[in-house]
Amino acid sequence: MLVLRHCHRLTRFGPLSPQRPQASSAGAWCSLRLVSSSNNNDSKEQRWEHPGHAPNLRLAFAGLLAGTGAVLAYGLHHHKAEQSDIVSAQLKAQPSQLPVFSQEEVTKHRTPKDGVWVTYKGGVYDITEFVAVHPGGDKILLAAGGALEPFWALYAVHNQEHVLAMLSEYKVGELRAEDQKKQQSAASSDPYSSDPERHPALRVNSLKPFNAEPPPELLSDSYVTPSAIFFKRNHLPVPRVDPASYELRVDGLPGGGLKLSLEDLKKRFPKHTVTATLQCAGNRRSEMNAVKQVKGLNWGISAISNATWAGARLRDVLLAAGYDADAAQWARHVQFEGLDKDVTGTTYGASIPVNKAIGEEGDVLLAYEMNGEPLPPDHGFPVRVVVPGTVGARNVKWLSKITVSAEESGSHWQQNDYKGFSPTTDWDTVDFKSAPAIQELPVQSAITVPADGAAVPRASEEVTVKGYAWSGGGREVVRVDVSLDGGKTWQVAELRSSDGGQSPEPSPPPGRAWAWKLWELTAPLPSEARQLEIVCKAVDNSYNMQPDTVAPIWNLRGVLSNAWHRVKVNIVDSDE
Amino acid sequence: MLVLRHCHRLTRFGPLSPQRPQASSAGAWCSLRLVSSSNNNDSKEQRWEHPGHAPNLRLAFAGLLAGTGAVLAYGLHHHKAEQSDIVSAQLKAQPSQLPVFSQEEVTKHRTPKDGVWVTYKGGVYDITEFVAVHPGGDKILLAAGGALEPFWALYAVHNQEHVLAMLSEYKVGELRAEDQKKQQSAASSDPYSSDPERHPALRVNSLKPFNAEPPPELLSDSYVTPSAIFFKRNHLPVPRVDPASYELRVDGLPGGGLKLSLEDLKKRFPKHTVTATLQCAGNRRSEMNAVKQVKGLNWGISAISNATWAGARLRDVLLAAGYDADAAQWARHVQFEGLDKDVTGTTYGASIPVNKAIGEEGDVLLAYEMNGEPLPPDHGFPVRVVVPGTVGARNVKWLSKITVSAEESGSHWQQNDYKGFSPTTDWDTVDFKSAPAIQELPVQSAITVPADGAAVPRASEEVTVKGYAWSGGGREVVRVDVSLDGGKTWQVAELRSSDGGQSPEPSPPPGRAWAWKLWELTAPLPSEARQLEIVCKAVDNSYNMQPDTVAPIWNLRGVLSNAWHRVKVNIVDSDE
Repeated sequence: MLVLRHCHRLTRFGPLSPQRPQASSAGAWCSLRLVSSSNNNDSKEQRWEHPGHAPNLRLAFAGLLAGTGAVLAYGLHHHKAEQSDIVSAQLKAQPSQLPVFSQEEVTKHRTPKDGVWVTYKGGVYDITEFVAVHPGGDKILLAAGGALEPFWALYAVHNQEHVLAMLSEYKVGELRAEDQKKQQSAASSDPYSSDPERHPALRVNSLKPFNAEPPPELLSDSYVTPSAIFFKRNHLPVPRVDPASYELRVDGLPGGGLKLSLEDLKKRFPKHTVTATLQCAGNRRSEMNAVKQVKGLNWGISAISNATWAGARLRDVLLAAGYDADAAQWARHVQFEGLDKDVTGTTYGASIPVNKAIGEEGDVLLAYEMNGEPLPPDHGFPVRVVVPGTVGARNVKWLSKITVSAEESGSHWQQNDYKGFSPTTDWDTVDFKSAPAIQELPVQSAITVPADGAAVPRASEEVTVKGYAWSGGGREVVRVDVSLDGGKTWQVAELRSSDGGQSPEPSPPPGRAWAWKLWELTAPLPSEARQLEIVCKAVDNSYNMQPDTVAPIWNLRGVLSNAWHRVKVNIVDSDE
Repeated sequence: MLVLRHCHRLTRFGPLSPQRPQASSAGAWCSLRLVSSSNNNDSKEQRWEHPGHAPNLRLAFAGLLAGTGAVLAYGLHHHKAEQSDIVSAQLKAQPSQLPVFSQEEVTKHRTPKDGVWVTYKGGVYDITEFVAVHPGGDKILLAAGGALEPFWALYAVHNQEHVLAMLSEYKVGELRAEDQKKQQSAASSDPYSSDPERHPALRVNSLKPFNAEPPPELLSDSYVTPSAIFFKRNHLPVPRVDPASYELRVDGLPGGGLKLSLEDLKKRFPKHTVTATLQCAGNRRSEMNAVKQVKGLNWGISAISNATWAGARLRDVLLAAGYDADAAQWARHVQFEGLDKDVTGTTYGASIPVNKAIGEEGDVLLAYEMNGEPLPPDHGFPVRVVVPGTVGARNVKWLSKITVSAEESGSHWQQNDYKGFSPTTDWDTVDFKSAPAIQELPVQSAITVPADGAAVPRASEEVTVKGYAWSGGGREVVRVDVSLDGGKTWQVAELRSSDGGQSPEPSPPPGRAWAWKLWELTAPLPSEARQLEIVCKAVDNSYNMQPDTVAPIWNLRGVLSNAWHRVKVNIVDSDE
């Protein structure tokens, strides 16, 4: 249960204006302190303090409206829609002594100078003071003079009790009844209405945008993850693309660039096939949340999957577009843009270093197939980038544009997200420029079977432990150590690189081990034990190892969570 | 203090032969159990058990005669030469009831069939039974029928009390006095006599071969380590090479290979300069020894240094030798041989993957300069390989031959040394084929100042911590976290890439960060603390982190020791 404390200390607004009785709530916004009332442990307390640091606060929440998946930014848990609906209903039901405004009047307030008004479910709100501290930045002005609903439909993060509670403090009037009706009839459709059907086995972390992971025990059942249960990580609604009119642009090189249809991509360039594991930077974030709450989707251990991708090599396309020795002199990055966009028209974007893009051994694909079929809509139909060994966020889906550049992508996701920081860095002190954008990921492994808390019958006399292991940058996993006693003693697991009955894939060339290893260990149950703490850790061929514990690698965005994975299981006698 | 227990259980020799009263000591060799009498802690006990596993035991010690630096294999500490001399003198002084043999008779015993005899300081020893279990393998037969002294001069490991004690059990007679005199006059000179002078500041880990590291506080004083104090890691005596007659052969490619003089190397190929850090795989081994004794030199934290190297690119030389697209079809490794050799003529050797050798971004040098001067003798004069980002062992010195091959180097150091294993793997269970040869090293950092146990005056009110950080594979160190409280809280250190007063080196291209970062943090002394446990950990740009603790990465060769580095310092009041 969350308790909100509003602190009325002001920040950049100076003393309260008597004309603006709501202004105090602007201060409340930026001195917001969120406390988990069920837990008084300091280390778990949620703090957004230092109200004097409004610019940092803005930076801190900059990803919000941008839909970065920071959908939990204001809360510890998923707020159930019903709760919000109750508050919303209360909001609406309040007997109002406030004036009634026409839409025409509301529309006059679209700038800080004229005041910024918005409407929401028939209420009129003057949010002028709030604009400067809106976590999503200036994008809030897109709603100025109009309704919030279409924007909040895109970013479901707003649909939470305390957001609505805070909004209520800005209320200045009611919208005229006939304008309310007009709004309702003109209501934009749900931008997520064209999202595809998903497999019911998926564990949903957020519906809009859709983010979900398979149950761990399914993950380790298949060396190549079936597309339907391959983890889904969308930042925005799934764009529906007509393959016949699809066009990919390649820009940034002399000669006017290149435009390719889907057919061009398939026919002009050799088809190249790569089995590669993709992992979200936030995989295993829930373990960081257990140390101290971070911002982001509460991923378990399954924001990682392995598929066989086929398509044109990015290298071949860049060479066809005119990449040459001259370009190599100035080019440093290759930027990608997706067709997925937010209400402002801003598309998802990311970039990778040019040496990864152009290198013969980089194996970067413009993929149009996943596991032998056209890409599913959730995975970027008709064309996505697959950057083997590199964090999922750079594997841009629904690819529309490639730009060779001296600069990194300027996108929010490249500049102000997907970076790692010291555990001491908080949202008041973070300087996103001080850390490199995540590209290659560190060595990783996790236990998929048994599940934490599972019962193991003593009569079985042994326990079988399964999991996955992978490392970024093409570094092959060469060993997985498993402990049944919390890390005191270790046994070496058996690795596999294929599904049962199939011959293992040949060992990859050095630096090109893009696919994970599944691993398994069957060990006798220690005779006296009543509980096992099972631990795994992987080693890659650069002999990087996973850190022992989570707290020292904790970071405010909850990325790069790769400490030893631990599950506790209980050994039960048959009569229990 | 070491206690040797001889166990008389036999292994492969069957029952004791009454003609060979010494045979029991052969059994003693392979069931040798070494126990530190000063420490009854099981985890620290030195065990070489399972006497039935003679082949494993041989494997375990296979590096011994080969001079791999496993000079501590029989002991916990450096045995002082004086101790050995006392035993040796006792050996010699024993009133002998044994027969006197001529050199001629001794020389007849050179095969297992005829018996294998050797002489040592006037004694004659029948070591026939010992040959099969000699840690150094068949190489012992090189001494058959002759004197041990020239061999033991090469491998100082033998000059230890317990080795001499065991030898004494094989004694069968005395060498005729006139033959003793002949031996002494013909005594081969010390193979290390031409080793160069070394800087007195170096801390010597072994004299023959010479292995030494600088004091840590000197290390962090210079971004580019002065050559004189750059850590020395020799496997064999330093060969003295005449630069005028020096010849480098490049083999394995069609067309008969290439031969290059030093002048050829300097004139035919562009000179390329790279600042690169080299690190011994055994750096920080002493911390593993503190967990449980391993085999190898007891390196502190300074088996790492940074220098500016200049020479021809290996890539350019390979292309000149005929490396082409055809070669790329079959070539997988590039092997190197040094001019340093043991008594059998076996030279030091190693290999690297061909993609590292030929890649434009690999920056592998055939270096003839170190820090602007010709290579010093200890560092490979006139030519060595510098493989940036790769373990020191592959940076072959005194380079004589390069071979392009489908296979790795077959050398001991590539196949049966310099590999990492699980902490559970011991010398009885190790399978060297199961692990890849170390190439790229994992992320590393250590504290050079203050030293462990140092006193920090409380009056100073703050403490300055300094150190180095580096990662293999060209991965740039992007952050170093420092803790003053054993890892509970962290502060971010300042990194530097140049010496004071000089402009920092430009940021390297991705994947080509070959040089370390020095780092420094000045922090207030915690007011109440009487002791600080200072800890550091580095992060590279693949966001690999160091493991928290040593025990879970412990391995029988004591390589890859990269857990958080910890030093304890005492805060002292001025009146203390």
